[in-house]
Amino acid sequence: MSEPDWLRTGIGDSDADSITLMGRDLSTELMGQVSFTQLAFLLVRKRLPSEGETRLLDAILVSLADHGLTPTVLAARLTHTGAPESIQGAVAAGLLGSGSVFLGVVEDTARFLDELLGEDGPEREVVERIVRERGRIPGLGHPVHKVEDPRTPRIYAIAEEAGLVGDRLRLLRLVAEVYREQSGNDLPINGAGVAGAALADLGFPASLLRGFALLARTAGLLGHLAEEMDEPLGMPLYREVDERAIYDPPDTDK
Amino acid sequence: MSEPDWLRTGIGDSDADSITLMGRDLSTELMGQVSFTQLAFLLVRKRLPSEGETRLLDAILVSLADHGLTPTVLAARLTHTGAPESIQGAVAAGLLGSGSVFLGVVEDTARFLDELLGEDGPEREVVERIVRERGRIPGLGHPVHKVEDPRTPRIYAIAEEAGLVGDRLRLLRLVAEVYREQSGNDLPINGAGVAGAALADLGFPASLLRGFALLARTAGLLGHLAEEMDEPLGMPLYREVDERAIYDPPDTDK
Amino acid sequence: MSEPDWLRTGIGDSDADSITLMGRDLSTELMGQVSFTQLAFLLVRKRLPSEGETRLLDAILVSLADHGLTPTVLAARLTHTGAPESIQGAVAAGLLGSGSVFLGVVEDTARFLDELLGEDGPEREVVERIVRERGRIPGLGHPVHKVEDPRTPRIYAIAEEAGLVGDRLRLLRLVAEVYREQSGNDLPINGAGVAGAALADLGFPASLLRGFALLARTAGLLGHLAEEMDEPLGMPLYREVDERAIYDPPDTDK
Amino acid sequence: MSEPDWLRTGIGDSDADSITLMGRDLSTELMGQVSFTQLAFLLVRKRLPSEGETRLLDAILVSLADHGLTPTVLAARLTHTGAPESIQGAVAAGLLGSGSVFLGVVEDTARFLDELLGEDGPEREVVERIVRERGRIPGLGHPVHKVEDPRTPRIYAIAEEAGLVGDRLRLLRLVAEVYREQSGNDLPINGAGVAGAALADLGFPASLLRGFALLARTAGLLGHLAEEMDEPLGMPLYREVDERAIYDPPDTDK
Repeated sequence: MSEPDWLRTGIGDSDADSITLMGRDLSTELMGQVSFTQLAFLLVRKRLPSEGETRLLDAILVSLADHGLTPTVLAARLTHTGAPESIQGAVAAGLLGSGSVFLGVVEDTARFLDELLGEDGPEREVVERIVRERGRIPGLGHPVHKVEDPRTPRIYAIAEEAGLVGDRLRLLRLVAEVYREQSGNDLPINGAGVAGAALADLGFPASLLRGFALLARTAGLLGHLAEEMDEPLGMPLYREVDERAIYDPPDTDK
Repeated sequence: MSEPDWLRTGIGDSDADSITLMGRDLSTELMGQVSFTQLAFLLVRKRLPSEGETRLLDAILVSLADHGLTPTVLAARLTHTGAPESIQGAVAAGLLGSGSVFLGVVEDTARFLDELLGEDGPEREVVERIVRERGRIPGLGHPVHKVEDPRTPRIYAIAEEAGLVGDRLRLLRLVAEVYREQSGNDLPINGAGVAGAALADLGFPASLLRGFALLARTAGLLGHLAEEMDEPLGMPLYREVDERAIYDPPDTDK
Repeated sequence: MSEPDWLRTGIGDSDADSITLMGRDLSTELMGQVSFTQLAFLLVRKRLPSEGETRLLDAILVSLADHGLTPTVLAARLTHTGAPESIQGAVAAGLLGSGSVFLGVVEDTARFLDELLGEDGPEREVVERIVRERGRIPGLGHPVHKVEDPRTPRIYAIAEEAGLVGDRLRLLRLVAEVYREQSGNDLPINGAGVAGAALADLGFPASLLRGFALLARTAGLLGHLAEEMDEPLGMPLYREVDERAIYDPPDTDK
Repeated sequence: MSEPDWLRTGIGDSDADSITLMGRDLSTELMGQVSFTQLAFLLVRKRLPSEGETRLLDAILVSLADHGLTPTVLAARLTHTGAPESIQGAVAAGLLGSGSVFLGVVEDTARFLDELLGEDGPEREVVERIVRERGRIPGLGHPVHKVEDPRTPRIYAIAEEAGLVGDRLRLLRLVAEVYREQSGNDLPINGAGVAGAALADLGFPASLLRGFALLARTAGLLGHLAEEMDEPLGMPLYREVDERAIYDPPDTDK
């Protein structure tokens, strides 16, 4: 039977003596030769990154790995409380909240910049028009870092050193400038926004950007689960919530 | 109110101007200074790795990232088929199958070696006794790599170059040797087993080893989801299964 | 310390002697008194359903419980292959694909009907205008049931018998009629669409409708996992895919 | 090509005009004819339940649906905080903590009773011996209901009325009695334990019992997510934790 066209993959293969990944021998060409970050780049972009690209991607992943006791981290730690034998469940629970409210900004910013890049007309005028039309600009503003998000200038500096300030990183600065001029409100570019622009400039499609944020967060979750194993926070948090909660039953139809 | 003792974390903190991670300033001391792999090590071990430790951990993560169209990869791609808007759901689904059958070996091997290390008596005798008592030794044998798993000698070589062959890597070799002598069956040390021993020698607790395998797999899943977006395999796989499946209803009590 | 306003719940409470759920004593007023379906209604609508409402909700849940070897079922069964010790992981994986492509129709149909109900003007004219404007109408058409989805007339009949054909069920019929007139294409109302309209007529908010589909699917997943434990499909499916897959590595930059 | 033996399912099938589930026509034989609880029984036991079995299963599912603001409920609500657009993710996160610590008791109790039933010798002597050997007996004791868990006598009463007190329910009472005699400690049979014994007496295999608990919990999660949409608890809980948390960084190697 000839195989259907769809049952193919370019990622991995193995036989009795060797394992191949992205067209390279795993043992001799990848293990000991490339970093995990380089491998992640290779798996999506289908080529190895340059030294500068590696440094920028490492910096982005490092910047996104942890944000303290966020809702997703609490979800992971509380899941571990009930199912300590399934660390994969705790990690999965910790990723599932990476949706529109927090990590979505990474992707939203990239999509917004792609949209701007797709418009006809002089760039500054396009940005002025669209920023005016939109109420809220993805990638600008942060509840804590009100003046400057410390990750933003660092990503720009690393991208500049590597010659990797592409269209999105450049445009995002223009967006922030135009927004400030129009609104009088000096919102900083936030860390998720600059990560989205930088990942898009590295050539990753918008639909996958949140995936890199998930990869980064997985490392953060390992740190939190290691801490949870030593100093559990899930059980006492539950106990306190349970004790403090006011029970306010619905008016019923009894 | 003084805070309870349990509501503390050593991982991250932030204020208006700075973000701190593991006691270090995120922007100036980590971004651009350490790789993502080094950060993952730092988050769990609470110190930065040496150059050799980084190289070994990178090699382990690279070795575990992908194994082709495994059940977990298929689960992730089929989840993407139904919910392409929630990449976090597809990644989570791809991690949830990382249980006792496949990735559990990483942890099982480390626990087995820890158990051997905890026994009294001359090492070789301990190994001989326990290998004899057990039917199945975690970390030995592979359904495809029947003679040698190509990842195994590579991990040993990298660990040796870095002076990082610790008690578990050493003991695992002895286990394989004793098993061969006793059974006459020359089972190779498999890639998951050597990864478990090497991660344990890097100082990670057994309960977290599967977590590193999950981190590695997350990168593999990004590659598969990127491929799924371009060349979908989930929908045609479902269609084929649906068409080929034989419906064999239960004898009912009607 | 006075408690903050947000730490309250109306769902459940317990003390040494009793458990309360939605303002009712669990043991004496709920167990043995209400069915599981009635309880699910109570938990969301904060009142018990009438007999007719119970019958309609039961029929909807029954109609949504299973659709054979769908992508989400395959994801659950493949997850069980790797982690048979964590049935919660297999069920979770089976729910995560309940997104925009399949189960989203339940919610999309309800939102579309809500939108129509919110428009000013004679109903038929509103429907004619909006159906004309939209390319694709949620809730119409099915890849297999091209003439009639057998669930649709049954839900309508049960709703009619119970006097529960509300605005959405009524309007959905008008939408199908107008669509047929305008397009000449006689697309049937599908099972997910009629379920969405009926659930919305039962007073559930659009944002929760997919939740009822998830509840229904959980029962279906139990059936599939019971079957998977007896007659495993995950492992042979993986083996076949692995064997048949064509490895087509990317052109690399080596 | 003749189909392999493994690609078969007894659960569902459909063609252009009909949908079949467990050998029955979905529209005419199931919808409007059986309750959702009856369908869940049918999907696993491959036959419809009697009236008494239905009542008992309904009571068990009702008893397990909710336990207030548990760790798993908090995980679901915190996941919804970050990804309100993916209700499937919040439900999945809420199920993933249903592991060994809480819901595992349902399964553990059934397995323990199965083990007792498998022993040779007079029943009372078997129970006395094994209870003496074990430190901790699954299904006995509850942190809140120290004298009696109100669900327990209710399940026994419903089972008795229906003539469904099987070997496990009977044996569980003997276990509690023997434990009291031996230890002098009058631990009540808890709700999870009695549910496990009753589900096992209904003929469900031990490996699936946690699945019924998951089904019950899914209804509870719908209630909590409905409440979360109206009165969010996730975001203020996160904010309070974030504000109160003491940052206690590790001694570093800087």
